[in-house]
Amino acid sequence: MARSRVASADERSRVDGRRRHLGAVLRRVHLGGAISRAELAGAMGVNRSTVMALTAELAAAGLVREERPAPSGRAGRPSLVVRPEPARAYVLAFDIAVDRLVAARVGLGGTVLDRREAPRLRAGADLDTVAGTLARLGRELYGAAAPRSVCVGVGASYCGMIRRGDGMVRFGPDMGWVDQAFGAELGRRLALGLAVSVGNEAHLGALAEHTRGAGVGIQNLVYLHGDVGVGGGIIVGGELLDGDGGYGSEVGHMVVNPYDGRPCGCGSRGCLEAEVGERALLDAARRPPGLIGRDAVRAVVRAADEGDEAAREALRRIGDWLGIGVANLINLFNPGMVIFGGVLRDVYPGAAAPVRGRVAENVLPISRERVRLRISALGDDATLLGAADLAFAPLLADPLATFRDRAAGGHGHG
Amino acid sequence: MARSRVASADERSRVDGRRRHLGAVLRRVHLGGAISRAELAGAMGVNRSTVMALTAELAAAGLVREERPAPSGRAGRPSLVVRPEPARAYVLAFDIAVDRLVAARVGLGGTVLDRREAPRLRAGADLDTVAGTLARLGRELYGAAAPRSVCVGVGASYCGMIRRGDGMVRFGPDMGWVDQAFGAELGRRLALGLAVSVGNEAHLGALAEHTRGAGVGIQNLVYLHGDVGVGGGIIVGGELLDGDGGYGSEVGHMVVNPYDGRPCGCGSRGCLEAEVGERALLDAARRPPGLIGRDAVRAVVRAADEGDEAAREALRRIGDWLGIGVANLINLFNPGMVIFGGVLRDVYPGAAAPVRGRVAENVLPISRERVRLRISALGDDATLLGAADLAFAPLLADPLATFRDRAAGGHGHG
Repeated sequence: MARSRVASADERSRVDGRRRHLGAVLRRVHLGGAISRAELAGAMGVNRSTVMALTAELAAAGLVREERPAPSGRAGRPSLVVRPEPARAYVLAFDIAVDRLVAARVGLGGTVLDRREAPRLRAGADLDTVAGTLARLGRELYGAAAPRSVCVGVGASYCGMIRRGDGMVRFGPDMGWVDQAFGAELGRRLALGLAVSVGNEAHLGALAEHTRGAGVGIQNLVYLHGDVGVGGGIIVGGELLDGDGGYGSEVGHMVVNPYDGRPCGCGSRGCLEAEVGERALLDAARRPPGLIGRDAVRAVVRAADEGDEAAREALRRIGDWLGIGVANLINLFNPGMVIFGGVLRDVYPGAAAPVRGRVAENVLPISRERVRLRISALGDDATLLGAADLAFAPLLADPLATFRDRAAGGHGHG
Repeated sequence: MARSRVASADERSRVDGRRRHLGAVLRRVHLGGAISRAELAGAMGVNRSTVMALTAELAAAGLVREERPAPSGRAGRPSLVVRPEPARAYVLAFDIAVDRLVAARVGLGGTVLDRREAPRLRAGADLDTVAGTLARLGRELYGAAAPRSVCVGVGASYCGMIRRGDGMVRFGPDMGWVDQAFGAELGRRLALGLAVSVGNEAHLGALAEHTRGAGVGIQNLVYLHGDVGVGGGIIVGGELLDGDGGYGSEVGHMVVNPYDGRPCGCGSRGCLEAEVGERALLDAARRPPGLIGRDAVRAVVRAADEGDEAAREALRRIGDWLGIGVANLINLFNPGMVIFGGVLRDVYPGAAAPVRGRVAENVLPISRERVRLRISALGDDATLLGAADLAFAPLLADPLATFRDRAAGGHGHG
């Protein structure tokens, strides 16, 4: 009895170990792309025959492909290169921003295979409309998938505060949402037998930049995401800072201008997003109140490039407030990098001088010794790719079981 | 050959496992105090005979004591209670604050066994004077230790920015220190054959409150430490936030009053510590410029309690700025608790109303659903106990080897 219990514990631990190894290989090729078996073995600290057995299992399932590398001219038998197979396992990813709705089919490796966009909704877009629109786009993408491809997950990026675990939108001020069961509703309407994982857009943007964008290898980074407001995603020691309830990294409501500040959508004044958000920039550039959206912001940036003095002054003003926020964040987080994403990717270059001025003035010299200020490498797709990675998480945790369950469940295409 | 390599790998993994288990038992009793063997087994997820073997080894070395518990009236043989043995293994801990120098002998379990204080030094105290004074106090404590007790480490808390690894004070503005090799110098003068581990005072205060103070069990917390300025220690997911270089959690230089702020020691204006530090409070209470130190701050707090209107107004003013800082930190970290330590422990009760007002006004409702505002449970000893825990780290990582090495090396007392 004791002996058989020991044996089954050993067997369990062997199976767990194999699952972890398969997940590690698949994660490596999903995030980093093609890699030789020899490099994989080195990175994982296992021998080449172990790696060969693992990649063979993943290749047999159709999740990776093994190829002979281009001739190198070096002696000896070259190590085969392992690549993610984008066409076999894919996810549906959704990006719900204030002025656009995007749906995409994203293959293993982070390749966007197909996408649909719906026009701007803005305030007044209720759960029914948004979930209905997304579900329609999602079903279209699902229907258009290649034969034998399998949908292994669904992820969504939302511009608001999301409850951990169930995708409830606790607070989505830009759409006027409070406690809307978005994840559950979208999952119900898609009817794919998959739960929808939902994350805050700036959190997902930060994770995507950290794993496959400007911040690869940077263990402490601050990602600022400009939409109508300013969201934040902060990576601390390689992990997303999301606090006790999942609502951390909320940089937009850091008060930077307490006694003379612009009113903020949250009911307070002088929050960072009130001073540097879309409306602040458009007002400072004296654009008419009806003009909104990221295209309007980009038009101001272009006008500044072309010499429009009001636009230049607007970028300087926004840059000064943004600089105070960035300086505070560098003092707090001692990060290796600050990344400007969303529309801040467009705004930052014209506002860089005042931002850098504030960093020089307000950050302790030792804390700014190594920090770099960069724009997002993934651009508008950062949040979408972050949502895709949420959806890939179960596959990466247990590749073969997850894939076979979905393929066997009739959720493949042929 | 292959077989013997496997056997030795198994043996290594068995020895590692045992060392980890011994460390886990010792850490548990060091931080949590007396615990029954049965509870220990449950907490560690091992069976009672494993725990019995581990505690027997630690008891044989003299690191813990096992005792019969008080009669409970319940049936069955009661589980023995394991306690840390404070007299056998101890550390030297130092607290270098702006207006005091403390040295203490701290026993396993965090008991302060003996302590010495030197009078205030303030600005102008150079490395030579400070290290010399501390080494003298440390040697006195060492000489007065009980027979057979063993000094297993030395830790120090310093009011400035410390380089990871070597205890270099990069920036200690209150003493005017820049790049002073404090840890190395103190170690050399103590001449105990032990390296000195140095940490920032607010980081160590945060860790101590997290492991044995007001924040036990709280995985995300913000600790604010009032000295002359305001330091911060932030725990994110159970770990200290120290950023890329070890300089994170620097809350004192968060700009809260950018255009109308008081000048700060860092060269900027309107930093949190310029608005709520010792000088801001004493000025607001119209105390003469020569009056400094935590006793002066405490006198203002007492005066406010006794109805002094200038002192009350000063606490309200400081509370408003402190509240802006606290609100920003709650938005960023979504913590379960904010802890006020150092002199802020005295200041906070009289400033709580404006702090709570700002939190209500400036924190997103969802982020403040669960946060609690508390004063430090460890009081003035939080930083000292944090320094002691730095010094205990090697013993807790490998109890028997560390203890025996030190005992055998002639560093015991007989």
